[in-house]
Amino acid sequence: MVLAMGTLLTGCASGTGASKSASNSKGKVKNVIFMIGDGMGNSYTSGYRYYKANGGERFVSQTEFDKYLIGQQATYPEDPKQNVTDSASAATAMAAGVKTYNNAIGLDNDLSDTESVLERAKKKGKSTGLVATSEITHATPAGYGAHEATRKSMDRIADDYFDEKIDGKHKIDVLLGGGSKLFERDERNLVKEFEKDGYSHVTDKKTLEADNSDQILGLFATGGLPKMIDRTDETPSLADMTDAAIKRLDKNKDGFFLMVEGSQIDWAGHSNDIVGAMSEMEDFEAAFKKAIEFAEKDGETIVIATADHSTGGLSIAADDVYNWDTKPIHQAKRTPDFMAEEILEKGDVKKTLKDYIEFDLTDEEIASVEKTVKDAQELNKTNNEKAVDAVAIPIRKIFDVHSNTGWTTKGHTGEDVNVYAFGPQSDLFKGQIENTDQAKLIFGLIEGTNKKEDVKDVEKK
Amino acid sequence: MVLAMGTLLTGCASGTGASKSASNSKGKVKNVIFMIGDGMGNSYTSGYRYYKANGGERFVSQTEFDKYLIGQQATYPEDPKQNVTDSASAATAMAAGVKTYNNAIGLDNDLSDTESVLERAKKKGKSTGLVATSEITHATPAGYGAHEATRKSMDRIADDYFDEKIDGKHKIDVLLGGGSKLFERDERNLVKEFEKDGYSHVTDKKTLEADNSDQILGLFATGGLPKMIDRTDETPSLADMTDAAIKRLDKNKDGFFLMVEGSQIDWAGHSNDIVGAMSEMEDFEAAFKKAIEFAEKDGETIVIATADHSTGGLSIAADDVYNWDTKPIHQAKRTPDFMAEEILEKGDVKKTLKDYIEFDLTDEEIASVEKTVKDAQELNKTNNEKAVDAVAIPIRKIFDVHSNTGWTTKGHTGEDVNVYAFGPQSDLFKGQIENTDQAKLIFGLIEGTNKKEDVKDVEKK
Repeated sequence: MVLAMGTLLTGCASGTGASKSASNSKGKVKNVIFMIGDGMGNSYTSGYRYYKANGGERFVSQTEFDKYLIGQQATYPEDPKQNVTDSASAATAMAAGVKTYNNAIGLDNDLSDTESVLERAKKKGKSTGLVATSEITHATPAGYGAHEATRKSMDRIADDYFDEKIDGKHKIDVLLGGGSKLFERDERNLVKEFEKDGYSHVTDKKTLEADNSDQILGLFATGGLPKMIDRTDETPSLADMTDAAIKRLDKNKDGFFLMVEGSQIDWAGHSNDIVGAMSEMEDFEAAFKKAIEFAEKDGETIVIATADHSTGGLSIAADDVYNWDTKPIHQAKRTPDFMAEEILEKGDVKKTLKDYIEFDLTDEEIASVEKTVKDAQELNKTNNEKAVDAVAIPIRKIFDVHSNTGWTTKGHTGEDVNVYAFGPQSDLFKGQIENTDQAKLIFGLIEGTNKKEDVKDVEKK
Repeated sequence: MVLAMGTLLTGCASGTGASKSASNSKGKVKNVIFMIGDGMGNSYTSGYRYYKANGGERFVSQTEFDKYLIGQQATYPEDPKQNVTDSASAATAMAAGVKTYNNAIGLDNDLSDTESVLERAKKKGKSTGLVATSEITHATPAGYGAHEATRKSMDRIADDYFDEKIDGKHKIDVLLGGGSKLFERDERNLVKEFEKDGYSHVTDKKTLEADNSDQILGLFATGGLPKMIDRTDETPSLADMTDAAIKRLDKNKDGFFLMVEGSQIDWAGHSNDIVGAMSEMEDFEAAFKKAIEFAEKDGETIVIATADHSTGGLSIAADDVYNWDTKPIHQAKRTPDFMAEEILEKGDVKKTLKDYIEFDLTDEEIASVEKTVKDAQELNKTNNEKAVDAVAIPIRKIFDVHSNTGWTTKGHTGEDVNVYAFGPQSDLFKGQIENTDQAKLIFGLIEGTNKKEDVKDVEKK
């Protein structure tokens, strides 16, 4: 304690924040903002605290999330062959309260449609929105607004968003994210169809900010958005989109339901890319802060944040070293994938790495990237994603080695994930819960049966 | 949901349990039981739930811990070179409320002694106890009852337990665990000294159960106790020792402080031994249950359970597979280390593996163990620990491959660890806290300043 008394005192963590949610066991809920950090397991939230402190503050600063930690949720699916969930099954669980098979979008194991909290909210006259940094048709948002046997049917998911009406009206008022290719297809142009029905259509940050409509389709990339660290001014951040969604949805006197996903924490995890992971944690945290700020002002809004699962088997330190060094991660100016794209294009490994990495690389490290280039450039003619990956793998490895970051898989893992909540009735979500409880509790909030005793499925326990 | 409706309904997790602790923001605290699952990170507690369900129940059963989850603690030390804690620094943080360097036993960074909650409890007239499955002089218990510059001085730690008196009295009334070699040394026999001062001395389960003294030194192994799955009837379980400690300590009308450590969850993690890890989780869970049962009856006892850090970078599933198969882990009748010991002794790899592993091994798997034996037997003449490890490594690997278990390190990792609590004032410990807050809050409980407002260091936040 002696070494850093000053910072320790400001850094002590408990109490106040937790009591914010603790004091909120009562009160009317008008609006629900449900935020999902895709793949944001415990090692991501803990690691992000280390990353923010970056050594200088002796790791004692809090993240925006810390103040609102109230528990954890179990994430397992109900799949005949797999006991670690994918994002589709997890989204269906959190959206509809139903455990189902991996790949399922709003379908139960008997392939019957499930009802999502977004759909219920619309039935009750609330406004609704989906925001993501992936394609807005990706598994997580899809679980709230579509019903398909497999997540891979992103065309059909986009169709569902338009075609599946509730009381004759479109069920999702605000759609902001990536995936324009799913909406502007050869055989169907959903952008035109949405516009015809009164939706604004925006494609960059400027047009999003200039727009003032109640219903909007914002598609800011053909596929997923660039990661925060790789973005230009044209692309809105997750916080920008969250803000834009709330402004519109809040016009409804009957309230709203909004799902916001930090989609690419998971993508970075799948790539074992610690630079990308911390970039997307930052993006998600800023969006969470926006939501909390709104809820604090509003007084009738509950904000819940959680993850659908963890990804990559990320560990904070690895290989017998008792130190996770975040400095090298801060010294990246772009993701390894961004660097790999440029290397494929320009062919100058040394220059690209020097331009975007602020620490010195060894000759061996540079050579580890150089030796991938020739084959990757060939591969790039037919498969850009694989070519980028081939060049990015050794670059990601450089950051792992310098920071002592560990990974065990390119897939998901089964650990419980954290639950954060703020606002009226947030006490309902505390302790050890199931991912399905999220939906069951939110159904209760939407129906106005806000007391724990009235939430039937929880009461049974 | 359709596939397993029956089990899902009984399995839904939230609410009830959490509300147990939530309702306990008031009430007098007479006794404090602080339980530490050494190395018991989030992947251990989540994984243990999978392990207990073992596929048959579709993973929906709860562990004893789940009902009492109230938050998480950050674990980082205040060490000039390392930002991932060791058990000594973490124990000092939880015992004394002081962040210090790795290796420190009850010392601050300026090498001044810190006061532990056990010591304060004794000063206040309470009885005190330390229980562990490691040497009782190991880092975690030592943090509560000794003051040494390094955890390695286990002789001196044993001396501290005897020599450091409070108001002329021994400060620890109940000492139960392993490590007789530290107490019966050539130059000093602490067993005789303790006996002379009125302590009972017991060495196995039978003599522990027959004993009825208030003060006791129970040393059940020269070093650490065998892991639960390897134990014979002679060795008490952690639950047995916890029970024995509570019975004695509860005689004091002024109450008690008891620290109980599931020491070898961490040791299994260091070895990357999933069989041993689940064995020790089971041992710790049973002890936790004993403590809870006592607290439920007593009404003035708070039980807090947490971990000091996570170990091994354990992940629930690995290598791109979305399934963590617990069946092979259940099919082990002993730990890989136990099997390795027998192989070193008897030399028959095939027979030993067949005797203790209930699934069929491939010829390659058997060969992977066989090829270690000759060198290991040679090594065993001078270094038993390393020899056992050499033979055990490929056996542990067999379980990793069959279960899809991932590891990233033989050391510790920096993720936050769960906090569980039950009893009066348990609300104080909820949300995101620091490991140092545990001590600060317990000092408040001991002093009778039980309101959150009275716990100074927490109030500042």
